[in-house]
Amino acid sequence: MSKPTAPSNRTRIRRIAENAHYDPTTLHAILDAAYVCHVAFADDKGTHCIPTACWREGEYLYIHGSNGGRLIKLLAKGTQACVTVTHIDGLVLARSAFSHSMNYRSAMVYGIFEKVADKAGSLNTFMRHLAPGREHQARPGNPKEMAATTVMRIALNEAACKVRTGGPRDDDDDMQHPVWAGVLPLVQLRRAPVVDPACTHPAPDYVRTWQN
Amino acid sequence: MSKPTAPSNRTRIRRIAENAHYDPTTLHAILDAAYVCHVAFADDKGTHCIPTACWREGEYLYIHGSNGGRLIKLLAKGTQACVTVTHIDGLVLARSAFSHSMNYRSAMVYGIFEKVADKAGSLNTFMRHLAPGREHQARPGNPKEMAATTVMRIALNEAACKVRTGGPRDDDDDMQHPVWAGVLPLVQLRRAPVVDPACTHPAPDYVRTWQN
Repeated sequence: MSKPTAPSNRTRIRRIAENAHYDPTTLHAILDAAYVCHVAFADDKGTHCIPTACWREGEYLYIHGSNGGRLIKLLAKGTQACVTVTHIDGLVLARSAFSHSMNYRSAMVYGIFEKVADKAGSLNTFMRHLAPGREHQARPGNPKEMAATTVMRIALNEAACKVRTGGPRDDDDDMQHPVWAGVLPLVQLRRAPVVDPACTHPAPDYVRTWQN
Repeated sequence: MSKPTAPSNRTRIRRIAENAHYDPTTLHAILDAAYVCHVAFADDKGTHCIPTACWREGEYLYIHGSNGGRLIKLLAKGTQACVTVTHIDGLVLARSAFSHSMNYRSAMVYGIFEKVADKAGSLNTFMRHLAPGREHQARPGNPKEMAATTVMRIALNEAACKVRTGGPRDDDDDMQHPVWAGVLPLVQLRRAPVVDPACTHPAPDYVRTWQN
């Protein structure tokens, strides 16, 4: 297999480079499995790392927020950002302490966020991503709510993914060390919906099929 | 209830301030439930946001890494960092589109990492946190492995937490909107251990009791 090529110097993965992926399929799958990302940016008060909801449309990752919030105010100035999404899939218990690892899927995106003009369209896509069909059911945003909110997006053209799967990989010299070895898996599951006590409306499909 | 006080200006939560917490109990619980944190820092190539394993001891959050990695090299220079841990507990479906939310527990820590002298002791604590007792079972790090690794910690004295729990909170005017309302819970679960095919050793307690 030829070595995959990073889109820039700062996205080139050097540590355990065999876990690096730069293809859109891997990137999209990691982003689409996420409800939140972590956005890092710097201002005169320092470097910040803020979790916020995200969704993908095509080759962009979208976020939204109040116009008055620190995140939106800073990003709207054209501040360079780094957005990271991480899923933890398990603890990898090797024979040697230093060969312990985790199974994970992570994606980093570098760039500058831009404001999205079609806020209503993007927020509908976000709602559809969370609860398909609900964009036609919830009370839509009114002009005041819409005006107080900013939708921003970052292009996915400077991104890197790192993925580890599988069991422990000990050095040959450690294989006889007398200790259990394997993976302790972690998974994010969807639990039974909790209806609001004041709600008398039937559960739509995305609620009835939520639990897994 | 009196308004809680932030330890600094940049940790004072302004948006939905009723979800803010600055007490050690909340902070410790959020950090102790995490396997990874996101570390943001800036260098001459931009602002970065890197996921890495973490553990808490007292009033410090610890990380470790290869001496040669970008994260450790930059942090060892005394670069200011912001560390964030986020747990997502569910999607909150309100009647109004703009009242939708998520249930979450997040913690942000600002500061400067310092190198830890007692690397072996700290890494043992990390192992004990992941798999209690395994610090006496795995093949310990040898001098070469230990020398290639740096353990760093950041003090928890400039931190803020934000926590949302419970159901949707719609405005009175929206309560009659004809749509299902409630919470779609998300939870991280521990799945059945997967033994390494080459392993013939019995499963210790932390493996047998892993699944929940």
